[in-house]
Amino acid sequence: MANSRSGDTMTSRIVRIISAFDETRPSLPVAALARRANLPLSTTHRLVAELAGHGLLQRDRSGEIRLGLRLWELASRSSAALDLKSVAMPFMEDLQAVVRQHTQLSVLQDDEVLFIERLSSRGSVLNHAKVAGRLPLHVSSSGMVLMAHSPHHVQAAFLARAEQSSGIDRPAAEDLRRQWAHMRQSGFASLPGTVVAETTGIAVPIFDASGSAAAAIGVVVPTGSENPAATVPALMTAARGISRGLGAKPEVCFPIQ
Amino acid sequence: MANSRSGDTMTSRIVRIISAFDETRPSLPVAALARRANLPLSTTHRLVAELAGHGLLQRDRSGEIRLGLRLWELASRSSAALDLKSVAMPFMEDLQAVVRQHTQLSVLQDDEVLFIERLSSRGSVLNHAKVAGRLPLHVSSSGMVLMAHSPHHVQAAFLARAEQSSGIDRPAAEDLRRQWAHMRQSGFASLPGTVVAETTGIAVPIFDASGSAAAAIGVVVPTGSENPAATVPALMTAARGISRGLGAKPEVCFPIQ
Repeated sequence: MANSRSGDTMTSRIVRIISAFDETRPSLPVAALARRANLPLSTTHRLVAELAGHGLLQRDRSGEIRLGLRLWELASRSSAALDLKSVAMPFMEDLQAVVRQHTQLSVLQDDEVLFIERLSSRGSVLNHAKVAGRLPLHVSSSGMVLMAHSPHHVQAAFLARAEQSSGIDRPAAEDLRRQWAHMRQSGFASLPGTVVAETTGIAVPIFDASGSAAAAIGVVVPTGSENPAATVPALMTAARGISRGLGAKPEVCFPIQ
Repeated sequence: MANSRSGDTMTSRIVRIISAFDETRPSLPVAALARRANLPLSTTHRLVAELAGHGLLQRDRSGEIRLGLRLWELASRSSAALDLKSVAMPFMEDLQAVVRQHTQLSVLQDDEVLFIERLSSRGSVLNHAKVAGRLPLHVSSSGMVLMAHSPHHVQAAFLARAEQSSGIDRPAAEDLRRQWAHMRQSGFASLPGTVVAETTGIAVPIFDASGSAAAAIGVVVPTGSENPAATVPALMTAARGISRGLGAKPEVCFPIQ
């Protein structure tokens, strides 16, 4: 009943409209929206009117369409992301007060790192992570430390997909496995210059009630000035506090294997 | 084409499903979701499967349905809320470091105050505002100061609706007008004990490039210890920084009338 002749569901069309906006295109004219959502202009006009009627889209001053504040409100008020963030925030503030650099909270999503929250301090180094932004897993200290603490079958499945899609070859995959083994042993990841040359990411895992590495907390510091011996204990202290807040048992945090 | 026989659009059904979750009900069994969304169980099952296929919903460990992380990501990455938040965050951190109480950022939405961000400090007083949560406009210092700085026709329309819906009678409306005039003159709102008896909210407006009071920044302090003479200059300093970040002209900020 909701299908067009092409078998395209209404749900899928609405998802394509919402997905057409991103941080580089926060607002779009209707015609550009129709192109990016791969929909006829008339269908786009009708759906925009319906979605705007519910507050999920809104028109800005120039007449362009953007996501509505109501969509953010609905998505945020009961989201797992905000549950995690509300537990993590006081510990992130403590950490930032001590380390005085970008502090960020992230999870794995679709073989990438999705950043849930960050605290920036003015004067801290350049950082490409944005709230609700993503980075490829293997260039991010948060992504690497999370995969390092994932079960072996999850690692193997990631590597199989990465060989297909990202051209990560067999030797590169073996190198990733070695790095993960090392990170699992040490309990942290430090990746200098993988995103930008001048910065180094350092991250540790956060565990949930099931004992899984559910999220990562990390900092971004100037390459050359990183001092894991000083930073990692602060990160692990914050991560243990957040893990406890998520219901993790103390012995589950940072299993040294 | 997307309408059921009752004229209910697919968009409206999807909005009802997403709206069924809130902070008191972050996850729901399918049957409860169907009841709350006012949909037949079979329709709910089909829509849940479709929305979960796109990551907009997900099943938790117990099999209950909740909003998907993908929905939060889509709604957040290009939202006006996060634009405002990213400009405001460094100034909110500065303010919190000085005032050491709950610091919050909010906008007006549907005659209510919608909280976009808050920084809590452990040990600070009880505060009922949550991120993506709402409070009635007239009990919130942020809501009151925003309405105080709104055009007269916006105030009049609000009062007309409030007389209909919230039972705010003519004398109460006149009292609100007097409070707004005072707040517009002083540039801040201080409301002791309107949400809970022990706390006082103090808030000032943030202006955007068009000169409108687009948001408010406020703190929540213990009633009795509030000291607007000390707090308001810190709030106004932070608000001017955020307003400048939003493109407001300096002379637009805090027009004393």
